[in-house]
Amino acid sequence: MRFSPLIEQLMDAFRVLPGVGPKTAQRMAMHLLERERAGGERLASVIQKAIDEVGYCQRCRTLTEADICAICETPRRDDALLCVVESPADQLAIEEAGGFQGRYFVLHGHLSPLDGIGPDAIGVDQLEARVAEGHIEEIVLATNPTVEGEATAHYIAAQLARYGVRFSRLAYGVPMGGELEYVDGGTLSRAFSGRQPFSSD
Amino acid sequence: MRFSPLIEQLMDAFRVLPGVGPKTAQRMAMHLLERERAGGERLASVIQKAIDEVGYCQRCRTLTEADICAICETPRRDDALLCVVESPADQLAIEEAGGFQGRYFVLHGHLSPLDGIGPDAIGVDQLEARVAEGHIEEIVLATNPTVEGEATAHYIAAQLARYGVRFSRLAYGVPMGGELEYVDGGTLSRAFSGRQPFSSD
Ligand SMILES: [Zn+2]
Ligand SMILES: [Zn+2]
Repeated sequence: MRFSPLIEQLMDAFRVLPGVGPKTAQRMAMHLLERERAGGERLASVIQKAIDEVGYCQRCRTLTEADICAICETPRRDDALLCVVESPADQLAIEEAGGFQGRYFVLHGHLSPLDGIGPDAIGVDQLEARVAEGHIEEIVLATNPTVEGEATAHYIAAQLARYGVRFSRLAYGVPMGGELEYVDGGTLSRAFSGRQPFSSD
Repeated sequence: MRFSPLIEQLMDAFRVLPGVGPKTAQRMAMHLLERERAGGERLASVIQKAIDEVGYCQRCRTLTEADICAICETPRRDDALLCVVESPADQLAIEEAGGFQGRYFVLHGHLSPLDGIGPDAIGVDQLEARVAEGHIEEIVLATNPTVEGEATAHYIAAQLARYGVRFSRLAYGVPMGGELEYVDGGTLSRAFSGRQPFSSD
């Protein structure tokens, strides 16, 4: 025995979600059918609506159902400062950390020639058009601290060099509140070479 | 900043799934919108279809989109042996353990007077009608090895005592306080073959 065909299809469909294996998919299907039909209907309709309506902000490419997202829309942001991130989730993390008051541009990934992801796919043309408007003075290349993120940052900096904007990259270092013992060697040696003057007062 | 209203609604809707907190809901929403729109459409439509079409088997009350489930339908099962379980997931666990060749009856819960869950809600009338047909010789009361499952087994045994069927309960071998759904197949099948006579007093 397995469950009935439609229940099996439901369990199968849940596997599309990240981190959901067969056992979790079964629990989810049972939970919805046994206890949460109203919540399940709502989930189904919101998924469908979000897929139909959420696209990219025309200006920064973050995910939104509006033509222009709230951060691009507001006048209360510094147009001279642009932060380039790989994903909307990275953008949210930076917003939640607080302190950055500029604008954003979302790549939705990083360059990955082997997977056929080139400059077009990550919106480099659109980013260049934005820089060509002439308001931007500094671009923070906040792509991930990975080989691919690093390569993407280098590519963008080279591509936009002629516009005379400053580029910066997030400082590498040991994470706040972490223990040195658990920090990987690469990070540690970058933190070492980037060490800052320190005084006791 | 948070995400746009529709994305926030989507993250919120995912919280209906078991074990899904805010961070997981965010990952799920981002994953669907960034990388799995086709899978997301399929998930939405299968959830809706399952909620519309999956009901209870008219005979055993397990979840199915058919009027009568496959196990009730087949002639290749022993009508003299009936296994009463709390949930379709428990039924599946027993089937996967192998060895049991009788029929099932699914309570969809256990008696819980404080939550207003009485005999009607768990189908005791329907179970009684089934026993009254006269084919059943033994009822395995495979409710969970918990206080509530035990009380439910006692109630059913008392309620159906007059029909002169034998009652049994899974042998302990299954861990006290655990839930059947998570017991490994070997333990479950040992517990089945070691099932003990059971009476309501
Ligand atoms: Zn925007
Ligand atoms: Zn059935």
